[in-house]
Amino acid sequence: MEKYSKNNDTSYALGTTLTIEMLKRKKSVAKRVYINPKQKRDETFDKLVSLAREAKIPVILNNEKIFTALSGKDNVMAIGEFSKFESKLDENKNHLVLVNPSNMGNLGTIFRSGAAFEIGGLAIIKPAADCFDPKCVRSSMGAIFSLPFRYYSSFEEYEKEFPNHHLYPFMLQAKKELREAEKKEPYSLVYGNEATGLPAEFLKKGDPLIIAQSSEIDSLNLDNAVSIGLYYFKNN
Amino acid sequence: MEKYSKNNDTSYALGTTLTIEMLKRKKSVAKRVYINPKQKRDETFDKLVSLAREAKIPVILNNEKIFTALSGKDNVMAIGEFSKFESKLDENKNHLVLVNPSNMGNLGTIFRSGAAFEIGGLAIIKPAADCFDPKCVRSSMGAIFSLPFRYYSSFEEYEKEFPNHHLYPFMLQAKKELREAEKKEPYSLVYGNEATGLPAEFLKKGDPLIIAQSSEIDSLNLDNAVSIGLYYFKNN
Repeated sequence: MEKYSKNNDTSYALGTTLTIEMLKRKKSVAKRVYINPKQKRDETFDKLVSLAREAKIPVILNNEKIFTALSGKDNVMAIGEFSKFESKLDENKNHLVLVNPSNMGNLGTIFRSGAAFEIGGLAIIKPAADCFDPKCVRSSMGAIFSLPFRYYSSFEEYEKEFPNHHLYPFMLQAKKELREAEKKEPYSLVYGNEATGLPAEFLKKGDPLIIAQSSEIDSLNLDNAVSIGLYYFKNN
Repeated sequence: MEKYSKNNDTSYALGTTLTIEMLKRKKSVAKRVYINPKQKRDETFDKLVSLAREAKIPVILNNEKIFTALSGKDNVMAIGEFSKFESKLDENKNHLVLVNPSNMGNLGTIFRSGAAFEIGGLAIIKPAADCFDPKCVRSSMGAIFSLPFRYYSSFEEYEKEFPNHHLYPFMLQAKKELREAEKKEPYSLVYGNEATGLPAEFLKKGDPLIIAQSSEIDSLNLDNAVSIGLYYFKNN
């Protein structure tokens, strides 16, 4: 059984809860459900089998090796294999745009916050972390199956597709504080790489904002900065 | 050379930047600086030596083993050994209270957000993750050396010491949304464990708040929820 690879067309939801989320939210991409031979024939087992049936995909019961290959020492009782997918982003909805995010755990957490605050879509500008990596799928806690997202090869490509979106780049060099922002919809909240932030040219795009913070620290963690931005724009 | 242990009186700042932060912000707890034999005799070297001299602590140049023992494969060029410390929290300042946080990485990131939004102190209620673990020190990016914090054996112990603090427990069962909160100072923003949240009894304490979020997800990541709360209370 193969391990996960960035170049494969499929990836895996590791764990029973995550597999159930995948089957409930995105059954169109579901390919197979593996159930660990150690899993008891209980309600959880029945639920997995019945969701797999609804999705019209096979349930594999005798493949212990895939559990060792994909989850190592973790005690994972089910694995959901799915085809990698992206969605067209809706031009009438608000977006979150991540330019060159590099940390997989952060990216998963950002999917979770994006879903929590009902952002309309997530654009990820390459080069970027691979959100299909099982670690990212896991840290999204299933939000990757509900929040529409798409990879773009450059910010220009994104900008061309959505010329009417109001851009709000989050930058430490910006003059205007988040709480002074005038919200215009549809908007795109734009965040840079964890270590380097957005390039200076973004100061000329839309309405750059800073999250006021003490000089005691270099910057906030990316997913914290994103959560604050999402919460603020949703509630103001 | 020993590895880090929760039971030791000392811990370590791994990396040049972190060691410099420790020496600048908290030289009273500094014990030794180890410089990797591979480190060039450049400006960074001179800076470490001069900060160690100011702190009146020895610089150890020939102990390669401690780098292998503490940082493994990471290419760490300096290690700052320090005595574990806690601070008395100021009764006139606002606090963040974490009840039973279990994730070290989260805890470090929360120190960082706490410093960013200038909360007056951090109370950590045991059982809890060990913030002196080098992984947590590292994920705090040095904020552990500037934000006053203290461990308490129970929430009651904390409550007794600060009877005048207005409590704002963050709970999914709360009725009042964060943005409807009436801020009264000094305040304590109280958050529960990553997986279980706060026990129901906190609904009767102070003014429980919820961060409105979609039913698409179970809950926000703890450090994201904390960052939103800190930002909101600081700016409203």
